[in-house]
Amino acid sequence: MTTEIKTVEDVRNIAREKLKGICGVYKDCDGDPRRLCQGQSYGRALGIGGTGSGASFNNNYLALRKYKLKMELIQKDIVPNTFYDFFGRKLTMPIMAASVAGVNSFGGDRVITEQQFCHAVVQGCRDAGTLGWRGDTYTYSLENSYGIDAIAEVGGHGVKIVKPRNQDTIISFFKKAEEIGCVAVGVDIDGCGSYAMATHKKPVFKKSLEEIKELISSTNLPVIIKGIMTVEDAGKAIEAGAAAIVVSNHGGRVLDHTLGTADVLPHIAEKSKGKIRIIVDGGIRTGYDVLKMLALGAESVLIGRDIIRAAVGAGVKGVRIHMEYMQKTLQKAMKITSCRSINEVSPKILY
Amino acid sequence: MTTEIKTVEDVRNIAREKLKGICGVYKDCDGDPRRLCQGQSYGRALGIGGTGSGASFNNNYLALRKYKLKMELIQKDIVPNTFYDFFGRKLTMPIMAASVAGVNSFGGDRVITEQQFCHAVVQGCRDAGTLGWRGDTYTYSLENSYGIDAIAEVGGHGVKIVKPRNQDTIISFFKKAEEIGCVAVGVDIDGCGSYAMATHKKPVFKKSLEEIKELISSTNLPVIIKGIMTVEDAGKAIEAGAAAIVVSNHGGRVLDHTLGTADVLPHIAEKSKGKIRIIVDGGIRTGYDVLKMLALGAESVLIGRDIIRAAVGAGVKGVRIHMEYMQKTLQKAMKITSCRSINEVSPKILY
Amino acid sequence: MTTEIKTVEDVRNIAREKLKGICGVYKDCDGDPRRLCQGQSYGRALGIGGTGSGASFNNNYLALRKYKLKMELIQKDIVPNTFYDFFGRKLTMPIMAASVAGVNSFGGDRVITEQQFCHAVVQGCRDAGTLGWRGDTYTYSLENSYGIDAIAEVGGHGVKIVKPRNQDTIISFFKKAEEIGCVAVGVDIDGCGSYAMATHKKPVFKKSLEEIKELISSTNLPVIIKGIMTVEDAGKAIEAGAAAIVVSNHGGRVLDHTLGTADVLPHIAEKSKGKIRIIVDGGIRTGYDVLKMLALGAESVLIGRDIIRAAVGAGVKGVRIHMEYMQKTLQKAMKITSCRSINEVSPKILY
Amino acid sequence: MTTEIKTVEDVRNIAREKLKGICGVYKDCDGDPRRLCQGQSYGRALGIGGTGSGASFNNNYLALRKYKLKMELIQKDIVPNTFYDFFGRKLTMPIMAASVAGVNSFGGDRVITEQQFCHAVVQGCRDAGTLGWRGDTYTYSLENSYGIDAIAEVGGHGVKIVKPRNQDTIISFFKKAEEIGCVAVGVDIDGCGSYAMATHKKPVFKKSLEEIKELISSTNLPVIIKGIMTVEDAGKAIEAGAAAIVVSNHGGRVLDHTLGTADVLPHIAEKSKGKIRIIVDGGIRTGYDVLKMLALGAESVLIGRDIIRAAVGAGVKGVRIHMEYMQKTLQKAMKITSCRSINEVSPKILY
Repeated sequence: MTTEIKTVEDVRNIAREKLKGICGVYKDCDGDPRRLCQGQSYGRALGIGGTGSGASFNNNYLALRKYKLKMELIQKDIVPNTFYDFFGRKLTMPIMAASVAGVNSFGGDRVITEQQFCHAVVQGCRDAGTLGWRGDTYTYSLENSYGIDAIAEVGGHGVKIVKPRNQDTIISFFKKAEEIGCVAVGVDIDGCGSYAMATHKKPVFKKSLEEIKELISSTNLPVIIKGIMTVEDAGKAIEAGAAAIVVSNHGGRVLDHTLGTADVLPHIAEKSKGKIRIIVDGGIRTGYDVLKMLALGAESVLIGRDIIRAAVGAGVKGVRIHMEYMQKTLQKAMKITSCRSINEVSPKILY
Repeated sequence: MTTEIKTVEDVRNIAREKLKGICGVYKDCDGDPRRLCQGQSYGRALGIGGTGSGASFNNNYLALRKYKLKMELIQKDIVPNTFYDFFGRKLTMPIMAASVAGVNSFGGDRVITEQQFCHAVVQGCRDAGTLGWRGDTYTYSLENSYGIDAIAEVGGHGVKIVKPRNQDTIISFFKKAEEIGCVAVGVDIDGCGSYAMATHKKPVFKKSLEEIKELISSTNLPVIIKGIMTVEDAGKAIEAGAAAIVVSNHGGRVLDHTLGTADVLPHIAEKSKGKIRIIVDGGIRTGYDVLKMLALGAESVLIGRDIIRAAVGAGVKGVRIHMEYMQKTLQKAMKITSCRSINEVSPKILY
Repeated sequence: MTTEIKTVEDVRNIAREKLKGICGVYKDCDGDPRRLCQGQSYGRALGIGGTGSGASFNNNYLALRKYKLKMELIQKDIVPNTFYDFFGRKLTMPIMAASVAGVNSFGGDRVITEQQFCHAVVQGCRDAGTLGWRGDTYTYSLENSYGIDAIAEVGGHGVKIVKPRNQDTIISFFKKAEEIGCVAVGVDIDGCGSYAMATHKKPVFKKSLEEIKELISSTNLPVIIKGIMTVEDAGKAIEAGAAAIVVSNHGGRVLDHTLGTADVLPHIAEKSKGKIRIIVDGGIRTGYDVLKMLALGAESVLIGRDIIRAAVGAGVKGVRIHMEYMQKTLQKAMKITSCRSINEVSPKILY
Repeated sequence: MTTEIKTVEDVRNIAREKLKGICGVYKDCDGDPRRLCQGQSYGRALGIGGTGSGASFNNNYLALRKYKLKMELIQKDIVPNTFYDFFGRKLTMPIMAASVAGVNSFGGDRVITEQQFCHAVVQGCRDAGTLGWRGDTYTYSLENSYGIDAIAEVGGHGVKIVKPRNQDTIISFFKKAEEIGCVAVGVDIDGCGSYAMATHKKPVFKKSLEEIKELISSTNLPVIIKGIMTVEDAGKAIEAGAAAIVVSNHGGRVLDHTLGTADVLPHIAEKSKGKIRIIVDGGIRTGYDVLKMLALGAESVLIGRDIIRAAVGAGVKGVRIHMEYMQKTLQKAMKITSCRSINEVSPKILY
């Protein structure tokens, strides 16, 4: 039967079945509390919902929807190239899997284990010609490092993001990532508000400029700072020598009522573009959305919740199918807006 | 029993039954993903939904709703005339059926065959005193040309739109249309992003100014360019010598997150009116909506999804009843806004 | 059991039962097509819905909601007086029942007959110290004049509105109203777009300034022109010598996509206040809404759909209870916004 | 089984069961009439809904949602202190329980008695290190003073708010509160529009500046004026010598269509901050919302409906758990926005 899984829709149908009562697996999930999924649960904390009212999650979605794409059709035909160079790796698309972790929080091992999840993401991304990022949560340790293990299986073709734990622990994780040949490492500084980490005796902290500098100097790998929502924080990341930033509000899971990432991205890009790689996540559902983010100043994007659903639906294959769908819709969007390569994407294609 | 079908509502009731689980057949369909139809299907690709999130479809609807109509009542009584001259044909209204094709994608032959559909549209339109356009999709070929065949049955009283295939194929279609006496031909250049065509080895292309000129010079028929969403593309269509443009985003089926057609129409009309015939589609549900489009600068409009539903509901008769409803509501709207003929419709009737 | 009917809610509960599948009898009905009532009927033409998409009905509601009321509390206590003088009649409130007719269109005699309805409205209003207006539709004639008959029963304590039929018929109706001692008569000129009238061989017309003058000079009663949505039409009504205008879009039942009455009222009031009595209807659900309309420049308001529901729910008693509720909420709103009488209501109480 | 109640969600689940058909116990309740709770009841007056259309309730929610919070992460780590000094009492947070009364109106003693409710609020707040306010309604008298009795049980650790009854009655209540050692007393002047009080022969009044002065001079306790929605009323409260104001529209229960409290708070704060303590309620659901209110100029906030639901769900324990949740989310919000203490909260953290 699994041989019949061919489309994003097939994958979603299975995921929907497995996540019954947890997630509606909408193709255009907006985090709105009135959706069926939330109606069913009377607003209880969803495994993959946002914090508090869910407004930050919803704002990511809404911010992106404000921008409109321009059709430009009387033109010579083109076959758009979605190729992307990520720290020397040749990727088929500027779209990678985000560093979500802790899938046990929605349904537990009955649905998918953390190990299976990490494996599916990294392998599925590689199969689609792109790259999976892996994260960190309270169940992770240097001994049980699901993400690094999964990346090791594909020869280091991945990125390891560590929560803002104490400096020594982060550095130890970075070292381990270096040993298995990771493409890059990073810290999701927005994780500093996590209850789960504190509760499980793995406290997390805000990180000062000096601490970030120390982390960067501890490794030869490029270091990525994830969780940038202001021009000021982007400036500090540049000053610290980071290789990239991820404009992110952690999928709306750490602070309620933030702006959407697509709201702040153009401002950050205006000041920082050319000085640092700018990656973004938040509310991206299709290649159409990816194109908008590129036009707003990002060089690539991360996909979070949809990758969870793809992995739950059909493992490695589900992730591959999802990423191929993303690439295909991006390519189509580039064709209709007349962008031959991702370098040609500019704000001109937006209203 | 079919003798009892008299109103648009009767037709819709039957269509709703036949399209259960595919389409809710709302009288005021807005493409919003939260409607019942989408709730039922958990957002799977609907036969007649929009691409991606469905935002472009929804934007057509929303754009049109922004405009308000002005009641002007203390006036001498009038009986508005909705007469429209379309390339010499005397139509009862400036409202024609759009060139939708591929009805097999929602329910297959169980609901309606492509042949039945084409027949219903062309004949139903003629019976209502107007004219049906017919389209193209991967199941169509010069040998199986459902649309042209249907138009031939009514002595050429129709328009044939071809997908942006290779030049030779388009020209062959144009020739065939010329032979059976079509009123006009055209290309829906926005179809260049179609997966279905590519998948079925009938690739589609963007078309350059030169290619469009070549198509126009290949036939004696008026050539219509459908899929114009910018002032620039409209300008090129004029330069190429096209007889008409259709301001259209393909019902939101080719690129997610475009503006609505009623958003771009006034800008295009401002630059192009008088230089080329301007037709528009997208989100038009009633004669009230038609009146707005005329006030925004179009000379006539096309009806897509509602005509599918009418044909599914009651074939030729369903299409006729729907078109008569459109004419009647347009006439009423003209009466209350004090427009005696479609030439008298101006932006003054809008807020 | 009927002796237990005491509150607006009691009345609505009965009406809801009787109108099952036709109307949801919401306390705050907004005409939005996504409400339960429309969900049930898949958007078919509701007995008391708006025309087309229902946008004009919804716009009435939305326009009124844009305005906010100012609480002003540190003040000497007051007991607001809602007294209203309407052409010499002393009413307990500036709130009257609108001239809706044709209740057979939602449920037929099973629910309520036209006769019962007219009786309930006129008598219920009188019992609450106010006054009912009665209308006209294709089932009405000089012989079967339900509205005038009902008004006659209460000694003429009512207003008779006639559809814009031919001049002679209107004048005959006016004469009959004069004979039974009606307070005022009028024409709802927005009724000129009615299909039902035309279909039943009782054609309706737009009325010129001269025709309106003729109607006014045909009777000694004050003449009200209902259906004014522009400053221009208001100016003509004044010029013609009308005694009052009703700012109204006919509850959104004649032209789709008009502005809401609360959108146009302040503009009309600015030019016409002091020159003619200004009455308004559209989207008014509570005394809070009434207060807004007064603040926007109306001297009184009409209640349409809620009165239908009240009459269906509990006849004369239902209408009385509803009107008393309206008066009570108006009085409360006046207290909190510091208005001692309706003459003290000014735009200052609005944000 | 009750030993298993640990989280806000556990408490809500029980409350939802007990309040079936009355309240949906949404985590992010917005008062919108389309929510399940209202759908079930077809818009009948909910025990804890807003007056009229419910717009004022909804406006509180919407006003607060307009503001966005700024993440500021590249910073030295902090452990925010939510300590608050309220008239000399050391509270763990600037969050207190509002003076809601009359819980019998939703479900009666079957759900919770007034006595149990008052006990739960005051005791639960104290257990969480904060303080409960108690109110007044028609079932309260000097003999049956549920609120004061509950406050007496915890040694006066509470605030007693009296409805704007006649001066003598208020002064008697104030005296009784003084005797049991209440922290402060007050009047909710917005209660002057209450039907219930009037109906039960306990009339309520607007209060003039002089009357408020008289009340203040009648007691040694700090006097709080609750129900301020304008700069003018705030000015009068200062002039009268009040110790604090509560910016409040009574949870949208006295006047429909007011602005939200977060709409007016910054204007009031601009004029009055430093001259009087400014407290606010309305639409606050989490510590994220609290932080916004502090940033907009309040020094502390009151929680109404959510405390009712917490008390219904698990009594004293439910209230404690809810308040701890509020404190925890406030602290998290302060961490991510870089506020070490509530005095450091400023408008800079808002967009």
